[in-house]
Amino acid sequence: MKNVRIGIIGIGNMGSAHAKQIFDGNIPNAELTAVCDVNPERLSWAEDTFGDSVERFDTPEAFFEAKACDAVFIATPHYDHPSLAIESLENDYHTLIEKPAGVYTKAVREMNEVAEASDKVFGIMYNQRTSPLYQKVKDLIDSGELGEMKRTVWIITDWYRPQSYYDAGDWRATWSGEGGGVLLNQDPHQLDLWQWICGMPVRVRSFMSFGKYRNIEVEDDVTAYVEYENGATGLFVTSIGEAPGTNRLEISGDKGKIVVEDGKLTFWRLRTPESQFNEEFKGGFGSPESWKIDIPTPGENSQHNGILKDWVNAIVNGTELLAPGVEGINGLTISNAMHLSAWTDDWVELPLDEDLFYEKLKDRIDNSTFVKESKNITLDVDGTF
Amino acid sequence: MKNVRIGIIGIGNMGSAHAKQIFDGNIPNAELTAVCDVNPERLSWAEDTFGDSVERFDTPEAFFEAKACDAVFIATPHYDHPSLAIESLENDYHTLIEKPAGVYTKAVREMNEVAEASDKVFGIMYNQRTSPLYQKVKDLIDSGELGEMKRTVWIITDWYRPQSYYDAGDWRATWSGEGGGVLLNQDPHQLDLWQWICGMPVRVRSFMSFGKYRNIEVEDDVTAYVEYENGATGLFVTSIGEAPGTNRLEISGDKGKIVVEDGKLTFWRLRTPESQFNEEFKGGFGSPESWKIDIPTPGENSQHNGILKDWVNAIVNGTELLAPGVEGINGLTISNAMHLSAWTDDWVELPLDEDLFYEKLKDRIDNSTFVKESKNITLDVDGTF
Repeated sequence: MKNVRIGIIGIGNMGSAHAKQIFDGNIPNAELTAVCDVNPERLSWAEDTFGDSVERFDTPEAFFEAKACDAVFIATPHYDHPSLAIESLENDYHTLIEKPAGVYTKAVREMNEVAEASDKVFGIMYNQRTSPLYQKVKDLIDSGELGEMKRTVWIITDWYRPQSYYDAGDWRATWSGEGGGVLLNQDPHQLDLWQWICGMPVRVRSFMSFGKYRNIEVEDDVTAYVEYENGATGLFVTSIGEAPGTNRLEISGDKGKIVVEDGKLTFWRLRTPESQFNEEFKGGFGSPESWKIDIPTPGENSQHNGILKDWVNAIVNGTELLAPGVEGINGLTISNAMHLSAWTDDWVELPLDEDLFYEKLKDRIDNSTFVKESKNITLDVDGTF
Repeated sequence: MKNVRIGIIGIGNMGSAHAKQIFDGNIPNAELTAVCDVNPERLSWAEDTFGDSVERFDTPEAFFEAKACDAVFIATPHYDHPSLAIESLENDYHTLIEKPAGVYTKAVREMNEVAEASDKVFGIMYNQRTSPLYQKVKDLIDSGELGEMKRTVWIITDWYRPQSYYDAGDWRATWSGEGGGVLLNQDPHQLDLWQWICGMPVRVRSFMSFGKYRNIEVEDDVTAYVEYENGATGLFVTSIGEAPGTNRLEISGDKGKIVVEDGKLTFWRLRTPESQFNEEFKGGFGSPESWKIDIPTPGENSQHNGILKDWVNAIVNGTELLAPGVEGINGLTISNAMHLSAWTDDWVELPLDEDLFYEKLKDRIDNSTFVKESKNITLDVDGTF
């Protein structure tokens, strides 16, 4: 069997890390054969690091035309994910995009249409879907162990970022460069896991601050309230300004409560479902018997390499993707709805008014008065996601 | 020294429990000398339980006129707290009211004016202020250990109540009888502690369901978002429909994070305040060193009897009250603001528009179509607060 020849567009923070993994042979059946970056410094880094066995391109056009690979991993800034993915798929490359799927769902929807019409494998780097912990949470919900969901609260405030992080990239944390802050850069994984596990809400009301903790023009702190079709409610709380932050997901249902915190999954299982207890119990004060259970979550969290392997495996063996690219629109829809709600200080119903969101985003890009000192430093991303 | 002679108005669930404590001699320097209830059954219970050494009255008028006590504990349904407290104070009785201070702040403000003009000791049964745990949390904030507050999230969903609880009293969980649900009956303690520890917010946006989990007309599930003067944000999440619920208070500040859960106080203390770290650190990815500390909270939580003793002590020795009656308006203001925000589906700014709140509450009382089977069962409140 021939190796899948992989090309990477965008070898900045994340792309360079992925490139090294593939180059070093950590992804079976895959080899790195091409890289593309508009920044000459990154290309000399590639030359120094990989030598001439990996072809280098300074424009996506030349990269796509060269056919120096079979499969393309897009690790550019967010805005370009949809357009490059469309170009990649239309040039008959299997395609993997970094998260988020894009910045606004209008563009992502177009990408999805192209992907659905294509016979190529289209994935997204949702490397938290490889977590045995969250897979088990999803299992407890999908299998009915928790019963009908009542509430979900995700406090995910451990995305601490100091000012120096924002100062290291001129596209970072700007409306024109990233299209948002913590929701676009740090939270896409949790927003994806949230909808993967709990489903999509039907309406959103959110509150956010822009540049409260850092000298940036985008959101650095978000509190979002959502409602689901069945009447369940949810909260998503996130920030880059708290230390040490919290990462705690609680989901309550008719048969008990799940809490994920400190890498552990605890399930308080009711012996009698709450709704049944409520029907039967006549004593006034009392509650269903509850068992606190430590749920085992065996297995390795293979993260980025896991998603790369899964994608290559799907290309080679036709297996189902753990993180299909077309599902990237879900988390982004919630993210866009949160922004739109805060901008309009009002409810946002789903399906999202995509044109209105795009218009409001464009307003912010066009009217930005934020001046960023132009710097582009490639940071060491070891240990980040 | 002569004992303080205590009379109790309202010997239902809570009042009867308090009456027994005082009668049994568990409150030093105090004796039970009078009770008052409009329900003849409760008076025969008092006769059976206390005999004729405790005088019995079937109207507040007769009770206040008799001067059979020096100090009055008002444990009636909520609506009557302010009017009875005013009558009590104006009749020169030291006065203690059950929580909440009332149902709407307009009436509570009048009560407070009378109390402030009086030389009698006026307290409120905020029996969670006796908790060494929450006293220590307040201490960590007041002393500056946590630094400036950034966020506070109280998930207090462990107020589980089955339908049979609501069916046991015809005034319970009605607009005319209680003026609300979980916020008025179960949460007054947490709402008080929240403002006692974190201060009063400046605006409130809340979301609630009315009768989602139980056949009641008032709120049974609340999510409230608040903002403070300094830009800090807060969440208060409460429900009577989840089992097992959660009681978890998290407060983050410039110098770390406090979590109260499972009766334990944990403080993640930053070696360098976050704001200082952010100024100094230039590495992009990094966060201040944080020490996880188990904070000791020695001492007994004396609860109801603690507040009773504190009140009697203030009467006898002129000590400061741990829970002054006039502070009851604070938690109720937050509660009223949460209701008003949900009713109007809009922001509510503080100071509260008390007339608007009262008008909207009156609408609900006047337009109630909820029919309750008339039952009045005195429940055993052992283990409740």
